[in-house]
Amino acid sequence: MELNTYLEEYARLLVYSGLNVKPGQVVVCRAPVETVELVRKVVKKAYEKGASNVLVKYNDEVVSHERYKNAKDSVFENVYEHDICFLNDTAKEKACYLTLVGDDPDLMSDVDPKRMSTYSKVFRSKTKYWRKQLDFMECQWCIGAVATPAWAKKVYPELNENEALEKLWKAIFEMTRIHGDSVQNWEKHKQSFEKKVQLLNEMKIQSFHYQNSLGTDLIVEMPKGYIFAGGGSFLNDGTYYFPNMPTEEVFSCPKRSGVHGKLVASLPLCHNGAMIEDFYFVFENGKVVDFDAKKGKEVLQSILDTDEGSKYLGEIAFVPYGSPISLLNTIFYETLIDENASCHFALGTSYAECIEGGLEMSEEELLAHEANQSFTHVDFMVGTDDLSIVAKCEDGKEVPIFVNGKYTQLFD
Amino acid sequence: MELNTYLEEYARLLVYSGLNVKPGQVVVCRAPVETVELVRKVVKKAYEKGASNVLVKYNDEVVSHERYKNAKDSVFENVYEHDICFLNDTAKEKACYLTLVGDDPDLMSDVDPKRMSTYSKVFRSKTKYWRKQLDFMECQWCIGAVATPAWAKKVYPELNENEALEKLWKAIFEMTRIHGDSVQNWEKHKQSFEKKVQLLNEMKIQSFHYQNSLGTDLIVEMPKGYIFAGGGSFLNDGTYYFPNMPTEEVFSCPKRSGVHGKLVASLPLCHNGAMIEDFYFVFENGKVVDFDAKKGKEVLQSILDTDEGSKYLGEIAFVPYGSPISLLNTIFYETLIDENASCHFALGTSYAECIEGGLEMSEEELLAHEANQSFTHVDFMVGTDDLSIVAKCEDGKEVPIFVNGKYTQLFD
Repeated sequence: MELNTYLEEYARLLVYSGLNVKPGQVVVCRAPVETVELVRKVVKKAYEKGASNVLVKYNDEVVSHERYKNAKDSVFENVYEHDICFLNDTAKEKACYLTLVGDDPDLMSDVDPKRMSTYSKVFRSKTKYWRKQLDFMECQWCIGAVATPAWAKKVYPELNENEALEKLWKAIFEMTRIHGDSVQNWEKHKQSFEKKVQLLNEMKIQSFHYQNSLGTDLIVEMPKGYIFAGGGSFLNDGTYYFPNMPTEEVFSCPKRSGVHGKLVASLPLCHNGAMIEDFYFVFENGKVVDFDAKKGKEVLQSILDTDEGSKYLGEIAFVPYGSPISLLNTIFYETLIDENASCHFALGTSYAECIEGGLEMSEEELLAHEANQSFTHVDFMVGTDDLSIVAKCEDGKEVPIFVNGKYTQLFD
Repeated sequence: MELNTYLEEYARLLVYSGLNVKPGQVVVCRAPVETVELVRKVVKKAYEKGASNVLVKYNDEVVSHERYKNAKDSVFENVYEHDICFLNDTAKEKACYLTLVGDDPDLMSDVDPKRMSTYSKVFRSKTKYWRKQLDFMECQWCIGAVATPAWAKKVYPELNENEALEKLWKAIFEMTRIHGDSVQNWEKHKQSFEKKVQLLNEMKIQSFHYQNSLGTDLIVEMPKGYIFAGGGSFLNDGTYYFPNMPTEEVFSCPKRSGVHGKLVASLPLCHNGAMIEDFYFVFENGKVVDFDAKKGKEVLQSILDTDEGSKYLGEIAFVPYGSPISLLNTIFYETLIDENASCHFALGTSYAECIEGGLEMSEEELLAHEANQSFTHVDFMVGTDDLSIVAKCEDGKEVPIFVNGKYTQLFD
């Protein structure tokens, strides 16, 4: 593998397809300090695409870890004005935001979680303007993955650092379709999303029936006005961008009270560093009424105990068996990637954009429309190579959506 | 050389002696993105010394270079609020500032210098509060050097990148006295400065007479109320810190109109990437009335033509032949280091702190006190192994200061 050539093409993809930088736009790039080489290529590509300025902010997770371990408490109760300004001011000039992630999944395991949640809460409240510009489609954003030594060693513990790093880069290039003209590859990818999303939204689906040999036999009803989404997003001015690279999922919001039957996970779940393996749930009228796990049952229990909403599903997502990530058959300990490996659900809160008018609704209104609300959102995988999903439409017709873990011909 | 051990000791020195971080203080560290390893050690040491928080800002000179080449003009006419806040707000809480430098000396040579000077001017004007806290001894600061690949290749072009990098680190460790207990070494270093500065300030010197075999034969008069400085500085609360690491010079301000005779440079001068070699000046009543250079005469001419003040001396500095840097016999293309290699002078502006009450004087008042004023300040080296400097005191006594390029026993 000629790493340099791939990095070059990856940088091009992130700038041209991921962000789709507009001429004259400011580009903000936040990245781990370990990935200088890629960042410099991104910067060059951004100016090539017409950026007026590119601001790079390197973060060093080891420095953050030292801070969480050693700084005084008040440090986490306040956010520096300069950190707030950085996001809010650039959002005011409608910058676009590239965030490269490659965290060591284990690094923060010895940190007081209260410090992290306190800081993150204050930070979110102070950067509301920035977030709003993103949520209301005024600024593009894209999250991409970068291989870093510590992360690579976690994913491939059997390899030495260099081998692990190379293998992780290779996996990232595979799942982001870096071969030939990658921008063209994502244009095709986009079209395949559009077709699926359009079909699912037009079918007026009442419920899905999931079945596979692991023992899954589940009915998932859909709320009125459900919206399937997937692939990229449109800014208000029509600019198309991909918030996530990779992305394979087509997702929506299930009817909170409309989930019935048994759901068996097909992959382990890593939650805050702890593993949950071989687990299942039984739902009645949307709520988990029984569950078990061969490993990590107490972790699963703690997830379900978060609040009332964490006992209900908030997301339904389709990913075909045989997608680039699923073929790698690897746990990456990074949601950006792992949630695109397989058909999945999430316990906890739903996305407001997945229900008609949802972006304008309060939490109470969303709940009244059967879109689940919770402080948490935990994805878990259910896809197998023999999964079948059949949709039942309002007119009573039954339409196979997945056969043997993949979309039926209808979606080709 | 066990790089890791040396880096550890260097980090300790920068934190304990350079900054002398106070318990509960915020530490700001600005560093090239190439020097993550050292920065992480500095962060650990800073918390160990009691820092309440350590803020790290990595800069990437390649990204800056791309910006200077490609961004739109208006980018350089404005400074982002977040960049201003970062310095001014931390200065408000009396943080201390570690700046690590390791620039590629050639990188910016193809950049429009107007863009750089425009930005730097706006930046300086917006961060006055921060600068004032530093200048008026409220916040410690320390500039240290770090080896980076591009810089190392410039200093040692005959070596490959890894060898050059290792050799540059070795040189940095040598010149910063990293052997045994380096903090203790700097305590001794401090004491030797104190003695020299005290003696020179008490001697009531009227003039110095410089002579060596290169042809230097120069009288330099001193203004009334001259102050020699060198080594570290005291904050208003008594905290002692070293603004520069390395530092060897003891310096003051010559009498603007009191320089007479011939001054021959002993080392080439690199000015904005251009070399000036084998050059000399002839002074009459302080002003350069003749000069020549075997190479780069036109560059020297352009320096002298900057303004009226650039034709006069603004700094006189003593560095003994045989100091760690002079023994390396290398041009580092970095003022922090090069100005500590040898006895030197500077054409151009003087330091206000080198004259009694100077920090409270206007430019006009400084000039009236014979402290030269100019937009520029260009150091050049004059020390040789046979340089002699004799001081003539107000009482008529003649006291040898340097013999054979080194301080006389008086200063031991």
